[in-house]
Amino acid sequence: MKLVFDKADLVKSVGIAMKAVSGKTTMPILECILIDASSNVIKFTSNDMELGIETIVTGMILERGIVALDAKIFSEIVRKLPDNQVTIETDENLVTTITCEKAKFNIPGQSGEDFSYLPILETSDCVSISQFTLKELIRQTIFSIAANENNKLMTGELFEIKDNTLRVVSLDGHRIAIRRIELKDSYPDRKVVVPGKTLNEISKILSGEMDDQIDIYFSENHIMFKFDDTTVVSRLIDGEYFRIDQMLSSDYETKVTINKKEFLSCIDRATLLVKEGDKKPIIIDIQDGAMELQINSAMGSMKEEIDINKEGKDIMIGFNPKFLIDALRVIDDEEISIYLVNPKAPCFIRNEEESYIYLILPVNFNSVR
Amino acid sequence: MKLVFDKADLVKSVGIAMKAVSGKTTMPILECILIDASSNVIKFTSNDMELGIETIVTGMILERGIVALDAKIFSEIVRKLPDNQVTIETDENLVTTITCEKAKFNIPGQSGEDFSYLPILETSDCVSISQFTLKELIRQTIFSIAANENNKLMTGELFEIKDNTLRVVSLDGHRIAIRRIELKDSYPDRKVVVPGKTLNEISKILSGEMDDQIDIYFSENHIMFKFDDTTVVSRLIDGEYFRIDQMLSSDYETKVTINKKEFLSCIDRATLLVKEGDKKPIIIDIQDGAMELQINSAMGSMKEEIDINKEGKDIMIGFNPKFLIDALRVIDDEEISIYLVNPKAPCFIRNEEESYIYLILPVNFNSVR
Repeated sequence: MKLVFDKADLVKSVGIAMKAVSGKTTMPILECILIDASSNVIKFTSNDMELGIETIVTGMILERGIVALDAKIFSEIVRKLPDNQVTIETDENLVTTITCEKAKFNIPGQSGEDFSYLPILETSDCVSISQFTLKELIRQTIFSIAANENNKLMTGELFEIKDNTLRVVSLDGHRIAIRRIELKDSYPDRKVVVPGKTLNEISKILSGEMDDQIDIYFSENHIMFKFDDTTVVSRLIDGEYFRIDQMLSSDYETKVTINKKEFLSCIDRATLLVKEGDKKPIIIDIQDGAMELQINSAMGSMKEEIDINKEGKDIMIGFNPKFLIDALRVIDDEEISIYLVNPKAPCFIRNEEESYIYLILPVNFNSVR
Repeated sequence: MKLVFDKADLVKSVGIAMKAVSGKTTMPILECILIDASSNVIKFTSNDMELGIETIVTGMILERGIVALDAKIFSEIVRKLPDNQVTIETDENLVTTITCEKAKFNIPGQSGEDFSYLPILETSDCVSISQFTLKELIRQTIFSIAANENNKLMTGELFEIKDNTLRVVSLDGHRIAIRRIELKDSYPDRKVVVPGKTLNEISKILSGEMDDQIDIYFSENHIMFKFDDTTVVSRLIDGEYFRIDQMLSSDYETKVTINKKEFLSCIDRATLLVKEGDKKPIIIDIQDGAMELQINSAMGSMKEEIDINKEGKDIMIGFNPKFLIDALRVIDDEEISIYLVNPKAPCFIRNEEESYIYLILPVNFNSVR
C-alpha cells in the first residue's frame, strides 16, 4: 500500500476516527485505526464495538492496500509532522513507513483481518437536521444523564420522534432535561435510547454549522449518523425508557421571571462555601419583587438578593446548587421563567413554547438548616 | 476593622499574597492571609516559613484593625464577586463580612497574634535589575534544578555576583544551565543558593516589563526582593554550591551550527516513540553539512536529517532527548552552536558571549542500541 496525503487532511480524518478508538481493551485490534485503500477511495475506520466511525479521507492512492495502525501512535506522529505532503507506505510484513520532508517513521502494522467493520443498517428511515441543531440538542441535555451504570437507561438519552417533532430527554433520578424541535417533515413514530458516550463523541466532530446537514438513520439495534464524509454507527441501549410525561405538569403556584446571568453568578458564588460531595442546599426565599438566596456551611455563610418578577404565592425552597447551575449554563435566554408548586414538588425552568424544560427536584432544607 | 476596596485591586493583591500560602500544613495560621490595617496603609501578608510575601493594597480604611482569613476561601470569594466596590468588615469575634453589591459573605477570621511576620533584613546590600531580566533568568535555568530533595543544594539556584556580573546556575547531576548578565554597577562578591520554589513563585508575580525594576537584597540567611508594592523574603539554602567552573571547558573537536526550531521539532517528533520513564536515547550522527537523528524503541523507529554547518571532526553521540528539548525551548536565538568533544564528554550549547551555557551529559548508546 502506498498513499499520499496533505498533512492537514490527515490530521482532520485521524482526529475523527480517534473518537471511536477503545481506550482500555484486551483486544489490541480495537486500539487501531484501519486504513482501507483497497478500492478507489481511502477510508479510516475505528470501532470499539459500541461505537464505530468510518470517514473518507482526501488522498492519492499510488498502490492499493489495507493496514491497521495503533491509533494513538499514528495520531501523535501525524500531528507532529511538518505541514507538508505525507506518504504512508507498507511493506510485505505490514511495517509502515510514514515520510514527510526529511522525517521518516517506521511503525509496525497489523492486517485488517480481525478488524470489525461497521454494521450495515438495512434502513432508509432517516431524519435530516442541521449539525448545529444536533450539537445544541446534545449540549443542552447531556449533563443530566447518570454518570454511573447502575441503571443503564439513565446513561443514555431518549430520542423520540412523533409526527414532526424530535424530543431529546435525559434524566438521572434528581432532574430531567428535555429539548424539543420541530422537524421539516413528518416521520413515523420512533423511540430509541442512544448511549451518552456516542452523543459526547459525535458532538466533538460535528461542525456546528447551521448550513451543514446531518442524516440520522434508525434500525432495530442501531442509530447511524451520516454527515460530510463521515458515518457514525452506534448500538442503542435496550429497554423501555422512563415515562416522563406523567412527571411533567403545567400547574404552578408561583412563577418567577429572573435575569439568568445574575441568578447563575449568584449561585456560583454561593457554591464557594460548599465542598465537593457536601450536600448543602441553597435556600431560595421568593417574595414580591425579590428573591433571597442563602447558603450556610462549615466554611461560612452567604446571602444575596436578586430582583425578580413574581406571580402567585411566596415560597421558600431548597435546591442542590449544582443542578441549578447545570441547567442555567446551557440556557441561551437572557430572562428565564421558573415555575414552582410547593417546597416538596419539583420546579420547572421552561420557556413559553416548551422547546426546553428542566425539571429539578428540591431538597428538604428544614432538616439540614 | 472596616475596609473598602475596588474588586480589581483586591484580586491582584490576594493573587500575589497567595503565592506564599502553605499548601499542606498542620498550622492553620499558615493557610491564612493576614490583613493588617493597623496603621495608615493596608498590607496583606502570607508566610509559609520558607517564603514570605507582603504587599501593600490600595483601599480605604474606615476603621483600623487586623484579621487573618483562610487564604483559599478568601481568594475564591474575592474572585467571584461582581466587579464593584468590596467592603470587608470584622466584628468583635473576628467574624468577617465581605459585602459587594447585594452579595454578603460571612466567614470566620483569626486573630493575627500567632501570625509570623516577615523577617527584617538588616542590610542595604542591594542589586537592581529589570523585572523582565529576572523573569528571563529564572525561566532559562529553572528547568534543570533537581526535582527530588536528595541533594538539597540541587533544588535551588546559585546566584553569584562578581564585580559587575550576575551569574545564575542550576544543575541536577545530568546537566547544568548557566545564565550571565552584566550589571550596571560593581557590587561586592556574593554567592547564595535560592530555593527553586521561591524563584518559581516570584516569577509568577513579576510584571515581566523591561521598565519595571526589582531590588534584590542579601543577608546571611535570606534573600529579599522588593518591587512595585511588594516585598518577598525567602530563606536561602545552606551549604557550599558545586564548583562548576572546573566542569566548563572551551575546548572542542566539533562545532555544529543549526536552526534551533528545526532541531527542536525534530527531537519533539522523535520522543513520540519514547514512553514516559523509558530511557531511550536519541542518536545524533554529525557529518559534513548534515546531522542525522535516529531513535529506536519498542513502538517503532524514526530517522530524520537536518542541514547543519559543521567545523571539525565527524561524531556520533547519544542524548536523553528531554534534556535537549528543555534547553532548546528556552533559548531565544534562531541559530545555535553546539560544541562537542567525544561521545563520552558533555556537549555545550552556548552563544559567543557565553550569556547562556547549557551543558548536557551524553548517554552511552552502544549498550542500548
